[in-house]
Amino acid sequence: MSPARLLHLPSEVTELALSVKREGGRVGVVPTMGCLHEGHLSLVRAAAAECDHVITTVFVNPTQFGPGEDFERYPRTLGNDVRLAEAAGTHTVFAPETAAMYAADHATTVEVAGLTSGLCGASRPGHFKGVTTIVAMLLNVTQADAAYFGRKDAQQAAVIRRMVRDLHFPVRVAVLPTVREPDGLAMSSRNAYLSAEERAQALGLVSALRRAAECWEAGERTAAGLCTAAADQLDAYAGFLAEYVALVHPDTMEPLQVIEGAEGVEGAGLLALAGRVGATRLIDNALFREGQAPQI
Amino acid sequence: MSPARLLHLPSEVTELALSVKREGGRVGVVPTMGCLHEGHLSLVRAAAAECDHVITTVFVNPTQFGPGEDFERYPRTLGNDVRLAEAAGTHTVFAPETAAMYAADHATTVEVAGLTSGLCGASRPGHFKGVTTIVAMLLNVTQADAAYFGRKDAQQAAVIRRMVRDLHFPVRVAVLPTVREPDGLAMSSRNAYLSAEERAQALGLVSALRRAAECWEAGERTAAGLCTAAADQLDAYAGFLAEYVALVHPDTMEPLQVIEGAEGVEGAGLLALAGRVGATRLIDNALFREGQAPQI
Repeated sequence: MSPARLLHLPSEVTELALSVKREGGRVGVVPTMGCLHEGHLSLVRAAAAECDHVITTVFVNPTQFGPGEDFERYPRTLGNDVRLAEAAGTHTVFAPETAAMYAADHATTVEVAGLTSGLCGASRPGHFKGVTTIVAMLLNVTQADAAYFGRKDAQQAAVIRRMVRDLHFPVRVAVLPTVREPDGLAMSSRNAYLSAEERAQALGLVSALRRAAECWEAGERTAAGLCTAAADQLDAYAGFLAEYVALVHPDTMEPLQVIEGAEGVEGAGLLALAGRVGATRLIDNALFREGQAPQI
Repeated sequence: MSPARLLHLPSEVTELALSVKREGGRVGVVPTMGCLHEGHLSLVRAAAAECDHVITTVFVNPTQFGPGEDFERYPRTLGNDVRLAEAAGTHTVFAPETAAMYAADHATTVEVAGLTSGLCGASRPGHFKGVTTIVAMLLNVTQADAAYFGRKDAQQAAVIRRMVRDLHFPVRVAVLPTVREPDGLAMSSRNAYLSAEERAQALGLVSALRRAAECWEAGERTAAGLCTAAADQLDAYAGFLAEYVALVHPDTMEPLQVIEGAEGVEGAGLLALAGRVGATRLIDNALFREGQAPQI
């Protein structure tokens, strides 16, 4: 494995990607905000297995943070990120300055309606508009044939899938399973904010998902049943302040009353949770699909 | 010249474009709504001179028409368009059905703020959002290295340039001079709507631009002077109902009080006109740039 190249200018990355593609190579991109953990690295490994050139992007995108959110304190660890990304199979790390992505008179946004209005979109207005805008930019800069995202951010993944389909980006969107700590906490760069006490309370998320999964395995298919099971379990974690507990369609993010199939389509539902432990906002989810074990 | 291929599916066009690019070829795209005239064909010829494969797209994009506008009656002449496009150097005509571009649950839009609020944007809310959305889609589908637009639609060209820069599309945007009928009327597919009497009144546009150009040549640099000259000339065409007469910056579309240079930048201004003759809305413009003859 040759050392990963660190590039800062969009034009350099595009030139590199086009040269890879002219030689018949496939480009994979793993968009991240850095502070890489095993969740990100599982995406890099998948990209390395499927593509000839892997670009891991590290950019704390200001437009997806709202006022009062954690843009300023979001952890920035580029040197370490480059080492980790490289060890996992990254060929190029793209870490632009904000001004290289957003000109001073930047005026263009990409927006997905509908899917973005509920769940995290309800409490973070403008968040997904920031996400789709930067991802569109990164797909253009990297000219990727495949892009890799984690299922922990399930709404984000659905929104990006929709954007890619709607705007006809010629890129395959891969959404890979959530990677968890040994105790079950979903990996997230924001876990770094948690005190030991808060971290224990954050386990309410995975505990609630596991409780709902038991109900699913026992035959429960209604939103009322699955959500109540999860919410009751969350209640046992007094330090966790729930924001939403919702059962939605995994593609449209529309609320479901019950998980049921349609003609030729197995029933599926996403149980999505969000809440706060102290000042830290955390999300998690489980995917239920008829005929499969729950994916947590 | 081999006969142009007519394709209807986005995926077929993308596959073709990628194969051209893998062999080191350059792809040029000329996005049109069909009813091709010499203005469009001048773009095709420029693309053919600069690119290895020219894709002319023919698609009457519903999202850029407002309620009560001419979407239904917009002229559709695909057979003739294919012949004309081919003769001018087109290799592939892409003429998709609406459903092939916009899925039933299409939810994604691309929007440029600021530049789109004045001039045509003021009287056609949503128009430029439709334009930027379809052009982003067409750039993705065709994977174009260069895209060609006419300067008759100067605001559209500025908006597309901004979108391409902001979203880092790796495409060169070429904006080529307005092509005119022998009597000076700017070529437009909508000229087909005009009766003989209306057509005579439509000449008010180019007449007004020429009058303003005389003032420019005589040293006039103020918006008041140039716009008044144009407006007075338009007044002589009683059948022409002016919508706007405005002097704006050619890149930002912001109103100018006076055309003046900045450090290292020659002064430039766009005199933009719009109005109606009968039920037909027409636009035209002239570009004034210090040290150059007026471009009408």
